[in-house]
Amino acid sequence: MVDFLSWGQSNPISSALVGQAPWRLLAASPGPDAPDNTLILAGVLLSLVIIYLASKVGGELANRFALPPVLGELVAGVVIGVSALKLIITPESGLASTDSLVIQFLQLTSGLSPGAAEATFHAQSEVISILAELGVIILLFEIGLESNIKDLLEVGPQALIVAVVGVAAPFVAGTAGLMLIFGVAAVPAIFAGAALTATSIGITSRVLAELPRPGGARGSQLASIEGQIILGAAVIDDVLGIIVLAVVASLAKTGQVEALNIIYLILSASLFLIGAILLGNFLSQTFIALSKRLKTRGELVIPALTFAFILAYGAAAVHLEAILGAFAAGLLLDESNERLTLQAQIRPIADMLVPIFFVMVGAKTNFGVLNPAIPSNREGLVIATFLIGVAILGKVVTGFTVFGQGPGINRLAIGVGMIPRGEVGLVFASVGTASGALDHALEAGIVVMVILTTFLAPPLLRWVFNTPIAALVPDVSPSGESGPGP
Amino acid sequence: MVDFLSWGQSNPISSALVGQAPWRLLAASPGPDAPDNTLILAGVLLSLVIIYLASKVGGELANRFALPPVLGELVAGVVIGVSALKLIITPESGLASTDSLVIQFLQLTSGLSPGAAEATFHAQSEVISILAELGVIILLFEIGLESNIKDLLEVGPQALIVAVVGVAAPFVAGTAGLMLIFGVAAVPAIFAGAALTATSIGITSRVLAELPRPGGARGSQLASIEGQIILGAAVIDDVLGIIVLAVVASLAKTGQVEALNIIYLILSASLFLIGAILLGNFLSQTFIALSKRLKTRGELVIPALTFAFILAYGAAAVHLEAILGAFAAGLLLDESNERLTLQAQIRPIADMLVPIFFVMVGAKTNFGVLNPAIPSNREGLVIATFLIGVAILGKVVTGFTVFGQGPGINRLAIGVGMIPRGEVGLVFASVGTASGALDHALEAGIVVMVILTTFLAPPLLRWVFNTPIAALVPDVSPSGESGPGP
Repeated sequence: MVDFLSWGQSNPISSALVGQAPWRLLAASPGPDAPDNTLILAGVLLSLVIIYLASKVGGELANRFALPPVLGELVAGVVIGVSALKLIITPESGLASTDSLVIQFLQLTSGLSPGAAEATFHAQSEVISILAELGVIILLFEIGLESNIKDLLEVGPQALIVAVVGVAAPFVAGTAGLMLIFGVAAVPAIFAGAALTATSIGITSRVLAELPRPGGARGSQLASIEGQIILGAAVIDDVLGIIVLAVVASLAKTGQVEALNIIYLILSASLFLIGAILLGNFLSQTFIALSKRLKTRGELVIPALTFAFILAYGAAAVHLEAILGAFAAGLLLDESNERLTLQAQIRPIADMLVPIFFVMVGAKTNFGVLNPAIPSNREGLVIATFLIGVAILGKVVTGFTVFGQGPGINRLAIGVGMIPRGEVGLVFASVGTASGALDHALEAGIVVMVILTTFLAPPLLRWVFNTPIAALVPDVSPSGESGPGP
Repeated sequence: MVDFLSWGQSNPISSALVGQAPWRLLAASPGPDAPDNTLILAGVLLSLVIIYLASKVGGELANRFALPPVLGELVAGVVIGVSALKLIITPESGLASTDSLVIQFLQLTSGLSPGAAEATFHAQSEVISILAELGVIILLFEIGLESNIKDLLEVGPQALIVAVVGVAAPFVAGTAGLMLIFGVAAVPAIFAGAALTATSIGITSRVLAELPRPGGARGSQLASIEGQIILGAAVIDDVLGIIVLAVVASLAKTGQVEALNIIYLILSASLFLIGAILLGNFLSQTFIALSKRLKTRGELVIPALTFAFILAYGAAAVHLEAILGAFAAGLLLDESNERLTLQAQIRPIADMLVPIFFVMVGAKTNFGVLNPAIPSNREGLVIATFLIGVAILGKVVTGFTVFGQGPGINRLAIGVGMIPRGEVGLVFASVGTASGALDHALEAGIVVMVILTTFLAPPLLRWVFNTPIAALVPDVSPSGESGPGP
């Protein structure tokens, strides 16, 4: 091993063999300390192996205990991530390449020089992060493919009300509570209240997709009335959350609301969504016509992915989230006759990429802020307890705003489905801290709130969907069944 | 648009909305000029859209003209790459972010600041390069799955001879020719001769997989006797090429061969390959037993990919190519009963990732070295002409070394199948230049040789497989048919 090591590091051949990516060499080769592709690739392969092993161990264990596999993947991510084993860490955690076991392993086995370690660490983390983002894009594309635009529009009014109440209730309760109970000033209180608004569409939709419908009904709970309302509301409140963020961030920065920017944001987001819906039929037809004329491999999956990535980019360009574009693309293609073939082909791609996202969510989550032994965490934990209460209750009430549905509807499940925060909540924490509006305790409180709602929602959701609503909610249905209507 | 732009760059909200990746924010946020994940993701999405469009336009056009789709993808890559439109370029080409149309588009549409452009350019190029590498890994994994270890071992002796002759003939002819005709000194001549040795397994196997077998035989030409010999020989000569590289590189560096390192390299490579073969049955059984006990999504594809990535990493760690490990993994899993299910699931993943590799091969190829209007290119072009002749003839003769096969065997096709250089040839050019052994003309000559053998082989191979061998090779078979035996 010593011979191997010294050979690996002292000899130019080894860096030539291991340290050069074949096709990059048409151009200048990188400097001695620059990261090279083969070592980055080796790091990515190692990281993927660890992530896949974790995802399967976590997912299968969770499944054995009747918990959603996604929760197992999140927890497995925590175990291998920054909070515990530090097998998979990223530079954003503040740790260096010397803390990364993957990089240390590369130095031991592949002749990675210490000088190139930091750059290799950054590059491979970047690649894994982007693979994770592609994973959640594919997830939302798949969910769009499995959803039906007519079903969604049918529950549109209910979803809109759930979304609006689900944004307003935690925002008002959170802001008021922080000001009245904790004596927080107005701007930070508004910021923290706003961070309570947006549901994590990724977590919620994955959990729903994993829940079987009772009584032999076809498909997952995603296809139930409750699932459709949750999905529609989560999409709407993602958009609302981004608008709220724009408002409070400009408030924090300048003390006033920059109306022009807000109007621009609302207009571009609306235009994107309306444009996608209006062009839907045309785009879907064009896609099918095009795909039918292709005769080489990937004739269906490549046009479909191209379409998804264009809309994902479009959504990001109008300052929405890329995943909303991917969801819209899936929804539009769902109209096509090739839907089932496409679903079957997207499935293995999702199987490959989606676990990377959920494991990395866990791996990047620093549970250090939950440690009450550290004095500076304590104030944050007290605030977090309050925020978590508001976050859960503020969403649970939304289920009871649903009108026009039969008594058999599981209102509690709708509210619980809106609980997981995530993406947008963490953006709030970061923007708020960067702008000086949030102090350490409030920021930590928001982060803890996001962590716990994310990790609590999957088991809660499975629980409320499996439990007869008669035992849980006031408006008992005559049948006492939790199954949805159709 | 102007309003959009200035808004995008002047307002902290926009960078908050577009410029922050949700889950990275649990840790410190990046500095103002650091690349952020959402913009890198946007760049990756844009690049993928361009690559997919190019791959389909190129692949379909090639198919219409009865050329292999992979040639269309390579040419489409050239069109969008560094040699022409510069839509997809990489930092290794020596171009900066200001030359990248993707980056310019991001600056126009997504509020990317000029300060962060260079870092974003590097990061998104890195991600695309690694996706391309994952693509060729998946390709070889798929080819391994479609190959049969018994068929390969059956033609093993023939493949070994084809490989050895295919390494020796161009090496000897190239080195001798450069010394005798061009008056090149011994060490650079040996270096350039060595660069002629290794076949590009990626190009060759993809072309073979795309060629239908005549006369209604099942599968592609990859499954023919010729295909099996080519595949086996390409794998062996990849290993031989890497050993040759180690020898000549140490020769160039120290003037002598460092026997210990060479022995170490040969031993570790042999151990890896023998270990993979010996453990094959056990690993394959374990994998199947494991996969059958999994109950959550990805129960087959995730263990299979994990296995492939472990062997790919292992191959890279013993200084072989990662793709050899992936091929071995596919070959081993081919023994399992789940083979057909797994093949069906790997197919869409390959459809998604493999075109990225071939388009990027084209995009990174700088055809500038082919321009005779630039005086410094001319000497290189003369040398290149000689090297190309040796590269083609030196491999074509290998087909005629095949023994023990019926007269119906297409010997010309075997030789032509070994023509495409690539990966290892370019590594030689780079290592040779870095060590000072190669001057500009020789390096350019090697690069041109790699380019032309890569681009010529696909149409040549299709042509020789479709043409009756009676018209082409001396040992005419009685039937005059080009179809293989079985």
